[in-house]
Amino acid sequence: MRRAMADAEVGDDVLDGDPTTRRLEAAVAERLGKERALFFPSGTMANQAAIWVQSTPGTEILLDAEAHIIHSEVAATSALCGVQVRPLRGAALVFRAADLMAGMRAPSSDGIEPSMVCLENTHNGAGGVVTTRDDLHALTTVARRFNLAVHLDGARLWNAAAATGTSLAAFAACADTVMVSFSKGLGAPVGACLAGPADVITRAHRARKRFGGGMRQSGILAAGALYGLEHHLDRLAEDHEAAKYLAHLVDGVGGAKVIMPDTNIVMIDLPSPRADDVIARAAALGVRIYKWHDRRVRAVTHLDAPIGLIAEHGPKIAQALSEVLA
Amino acid sequence: MRRAMADAEVGDDVLDGDPTTRRLEAAVAERLGKERALFFPSGTMANQAAIWVQSTPGTEILLDAEAHIIHSEVAATSALCGVQVRPLRGAALVFRAADLMAGMRAPSSDGIEPSMVCLENTHNGAGGVVTTRDDLHALTTVARRFNLAVHLDGARLWNAAAATGTSLAAFAACADTVMVSFSKGLGAPVGACLAGPADVITRAHRARKRFGGGMRQSGILAAGALYGLEHHLDRLAEDHEAAKYLAHLVDGVGGAKVIMPDTNIVMIDLPSPRADDVIARAAALGVRIYKWHDRRVRAVTHLDAPIGLIAEHGPKIAQALSEVLA
Amino acid sequence: MRRAMADAEVGDDVLDGDPTTRRLEAAVAERLGKERALFFPSGTMANQAAIWVQSTPGTEILLDAEAHIIHSEVAATSALCGVQVRPLRGAALVFRAADLMAGMRAPSSDGIEPSMVCLENTHNGAGGVVTTRDDLHALTTVARRFNLAVHLDGARLWNAAAATGTSLAAFAACADTVMVSFSKGLGAPVGACLAGPADVITRAHRARKRFGGGMRQSGILAAGALYGLEHHLDRLAEDHEAAKYLAHLVDGVGGAKVIMPDTNIVMIDLPSPRADDVIARAAALGVRIYKWHDRRVRAVTHLDAPIGLIAEHGPKIAQALSEVLA
Amino acid sequence: MRRAMADAEVGDDVLDGDPTTRRLEAAVAERLGKERALFFPSGTMANQAAIWVQSTPGTEILLDAEAHIIHSEVAATSALCGVQVRPLRGAALVFRAADLMAGMRAPSSDGIEPSMVCLENTHNGAGGVVTTRDDLHALTTVARRFNLAVHLDGARLWNAAAATGTSLAAFAACADTVMVSFSKGLGAPVGACLAGPADVITRAHRARKRFGGGMRQSGILAAGALYGLEHHLDRLAEDHEAAKYLAHLVDGVGGAKVIMPDTNIVMIDLPSPRADDVIARAAALGVRIYKWHDRRVRAVTHLDAPIGLIAEHGPKIAQALSEVLA
Repeated sequence: MRRAMADAEVGDDVLDGDPTTRRLEAAVAERLGKERALFFPSGTMANQAAIWVQSTPGTEILLDAEAHIIHSEVAATSALCGVQVRPLRGAALVFRAADLMAGMRAPSSDGIEPSMVCLENTHNGAGGVVTTRDDLHALTTVARRFNLAVHLDGARLWNAAAATGTSLAAFAACADTVMVSFSKGLGAPVGACLAGPADVITRAHRARKRFGGGMRQSGILAAGALYGLEHHLDRLAEDHEAAKYLAHLVDGVGGAKVIMPDTNIVMIDLPSPRADDVIARAAALGVRIYKWHDRRVRAVTHLDAPIGLIAEHGPKIAQALSEVLA
Repeated sequence: MRRAMADAEVGDDVLDGDPTTRRLEAAVAERLGKERALFFPSGTMANQAAIWVQSTPGTEILLDAEAHIIHSEVAATSALCGVQVRPLRGAALVFRAADLMAGMRAPSSDGIEPSMVCLENTHNGAGGVVTTRDDLHALTTVARRFNLAVHLDGARLWNAAAATGTSLAAFAACADTVMVSFSKGLGAPVGACLAGPADVITRAHRARKRFGGGMRQSGILAAGALYGLEHHLDRLAEDHEAAKYLAHLVDGVGGAKVIMPDTNIVMIDLPSPRADDVIARAAALGVRIYKWHDRRVRAVTHLDAPIGLIAEHGPKIAQALSEVLA
Repeated sequence: MRRAMADAEVGDDVLDGDPTTRRLEAAVAERLGKERALFFPSGTMANQAAIWVQSTPGTEILLDAEAHIIHSEVAATSALCGVQVRPLRGAALVFRAADLMAGMRAPSSDGIEPSMVCLENTHNGAGGVVTTRDDLHALTTVARRFNLAVHLDGARLWNAAAATGTSLAAFAACADTVMVSFSKGLGAPVGACLAGPADVITRAHRARKRFGGGMRQSGILAAGALYGLEHHLDRLAEDHEAAKYLAHLVDGVGGAKVIMPDTNIVMIDLPSPRADDVIARAAALGVRIYKWHDRRVRAVTHLDAPIGLIAEHGPKIAQALSEVLA
Repeated sequence: MRRAMADAEVGDDVLDGDPTTRRLEAAVAERLGKERALFFPSGTMANQAAIWVQSTPGTEILLDAEAHIIHSEVAATSALCGVQVRPLRGAALVFRAADLMAGMRAPSSDGIEPSMVCLENTHNGAGGVVTTRDDLHALTTVARRFNLAVHLDGARLWNAAAATGTSLAAFAACADTVMVSFSKGLGAPVGACLAGPADVITRAHRARKRFGGGMRQSGILAAGALYGLEHHLDRLAEDHEAAKYLAHLVDGVGGAKVIMPDTNIVMIDLPSPRADDVIARAAALGVRIYKWHDRRVRAVTHLDAPIGLIAEHGPKIAQALSEVLA
């Protein structure tokens, strides 16, 4: 990947386009079955550009209560796009069509209106859980009935496709716009794409400039993303196996409870608020896990933490749990 | 009240102040024990001015999940003030200190931060329920620990005081800024005041101009508000009695369930989504009630619907319920 | 007017409408030849609602460099509507079609775009100068060529009509939306209307709620506005005569220079930055004039400062100028 | 530079920092004499982060009428930061202390307030003109008197330093925050830094996340920037010589008029609106120049267009001018 980046053919993407970035954008649009894709420095910016161009300031956007857009984008929807978030809590791990339906307000001439629904698949906050294509389609059907735009935060859509066998395009067909990230499962250093109808992407291009995401020789980053797309997609199933292995290893240890993983995220709920201690203990054993909150830690399997390494690291996480929670 | 308004001494409140408006502002500041108060054309604008001057764009404000600010101010917090709402659902009807505590995020160098808590007392969405001074104080204590500004949407604070015997000032002492409305229980035609520290109100004055709330001869409206403040405060207890009477009358009729009222709001939950039918039937009997949602209607007792009238109207509401829900 | 207000029939304008407000709105829509009009607590809010519904956040709006919207609305266009102002300075006192044409940017795929033009007639900052119907039409023709919405800040449009004999409707036909104010020449205590196509006004209604301009028994204010509309329109010509009289009286005194008034505003430019002193001296003589900036003061003739009074006040202003500038 | 990027040591800059990015930030902070610097994907985002953290929504920021921030950042100041631009036109090419002084408004309790001044050095829109350290200091002195924050858009500050011999730190000392770009004179592919006091940069870090500028393995880009900083700074004087050479070559050709360059930008004003033709003709001769507007084109000398190449390209530009303008 480093070599691909070092050898990348570049241009000026702020002026008339960078050839490697153009190749990446075309490859993504094709895989997602969308008219056009646009490269962004981050998934956050791609999400916000999607909201900027498809929502209306002073309206509401409907999302799962644990969405990345609510918790990890520093209030950008309100601060930049001027829309209010309406978090919906699903009966299951992730909200579904019935939850969306129940969350719709009665129309009113001077009341608050919804303009958009944002979905997330896989859902990071729920432990990498997959929303199936059918569930996604049902959500979109409700959204369409109320004339709401639909954006899919698909930072980890690669994993949803790998886990289910559903094609990327079949998932993407359930949304107007889709964001995919290169710096997660695909292992590229930086970047994301937003894909959708040509006119929406044209407006997102202007939004990208406004947010400060216009980069000149972006081809160097795009080359890494393209390499990930071409070489790392097929190995995601291994990450999922590794996560399942890890989940079984640590579930129940010291009273910890694991959400059985659909993909490559292992959410471990602790019986007491000892996340900091578990993380410190695991770090001392050479394993890095992530604090979700006081009673929850997250372990992720990926390119640099594949099944072989997990065979070695899993027991260390179990040991850390057992020592701290004893 | 009409005569007081017709005779009001006025000036130009956009230039150097309207004398009647000044008198109203001084009276409100004194009753609430705050340094200064400022007159607004609506409670919504006063709430938003409080948020504008005390929150930081790109942060979160914490509120009860049923707050007026979330549901009835057309996304102004996001659209105008650039802050994201974080709705907290209380274990009881209204959120309390423990719910607020549980809703605080762990600090993070690049994550979302809270800057403000907005309380509502009495709480319209919960059926006019009173948060006691002790519960309010406990909420504020949590907010202070996290350096959060506290705003109290006290559109119906008059009712909370009348229902509990707690002084307006004792409630107001639990918040940095307090909004009180004149067009609800006090029966004035238009307006609200925001009270708080002098420097905050000075900045709210500029926010009022920006929102388009600078009115020239506002004394005509202020005269009505002043009249309400001087003549209608003492009669609120009657509204509360009337509400209790009404609640007992309709609770259980046709399977309807009433939230027993603390103050002047009677929330009636229906066993089926027949709100429109109940309202239409009641209207045919000459009584106006308000649709909350498909399964909930709201009746309010007030100056023009006092206990005498309720004695007459209550049975009609019961009849409407009984006919529709039969 | 006070009696009309005291006797006004009212309703709840936040719920289903106030009858007197409805009458005012219908009267304004008819005079301006627009489908619908909506009552606002201030001209500032009506202007901002027009911008909110007709511009696009992240674009530019084009205005005369001395527009009220730029200087006297506390940055609301940027802070609330998210649009950037592009001030154009006309070759004459007020910008014209050629100035607008010269101010258009070349289109660019990721550059800044215009979405709206805001005009002001009469133009307060230029001394109440009238833009004729022909000049207005030429401006609109340019705007149409670039698909820009056109809003007319007609706070003083009554004066433009009175001064030229052009009908209100003929002026209004040059813009999509028109704001007219009742608290200036018409002498009502509070309020303005925004008139335009029905669908635009429907959206402006929601914007009004968001800005906090929903007022309950607004009929009391509307009654004053209606009275002004019915009784004070015909006397504006007197104000204009009075202004001309005053202008001739003070022009040249102590080196002061007057912009010869089209309407009721007399802008007096001082040879040195002595505005504060001139105002203080005039106040001591019992006349109130307004500081525009260090070297400019503004005198306005109106209902309460008619030609008879000006015959008395004019010489005092001249005296103040002569004493201070000596 | 490509090799430096390929070999860069990287980490996760969204989590706990990328070592190469850290090295770049430290090097920039040191050269500019500021406490801390932060890497951004673009100069636009760094400018907007500076405005976000140092201005107040609903206020004005004062800038030169031709500032990059006004013309080339897609209304971000209004759309994202909620501040209104106040363009000041200088008596000279770039605005100076006296122009700033003249542009200050009289304070008013409910009027618009300024909160910030943004300077640009060298000034692209004025033809790469240098504001000397003394002129910059005088501007800052005025700003300080009015308690305004000062941001310096120093995308081309390297050129100002190279042209005058004034140190980067001496220029930077005139501002609270300074943006420098790596993708212009220094020839790196992507990126900019914002430098300033530690607490301001801490808040800018959160703004960067909100704008979507958090990048994971940003070290690859930072390595290019660091290389430019270490190897390309000393050669800027050559670009300036080349620009002067070019300027003399084309000035007067076909009636074109050149702003004599301080640095590496040659602005060519045409006697007629033939920019498109001149550019097309130059392109046919193998030289790329940039359209500023209908009557102005811009040529830039840089790393890939050094003096040797200019000796060859200059005559072609002159030829294009002469052919088109004949």
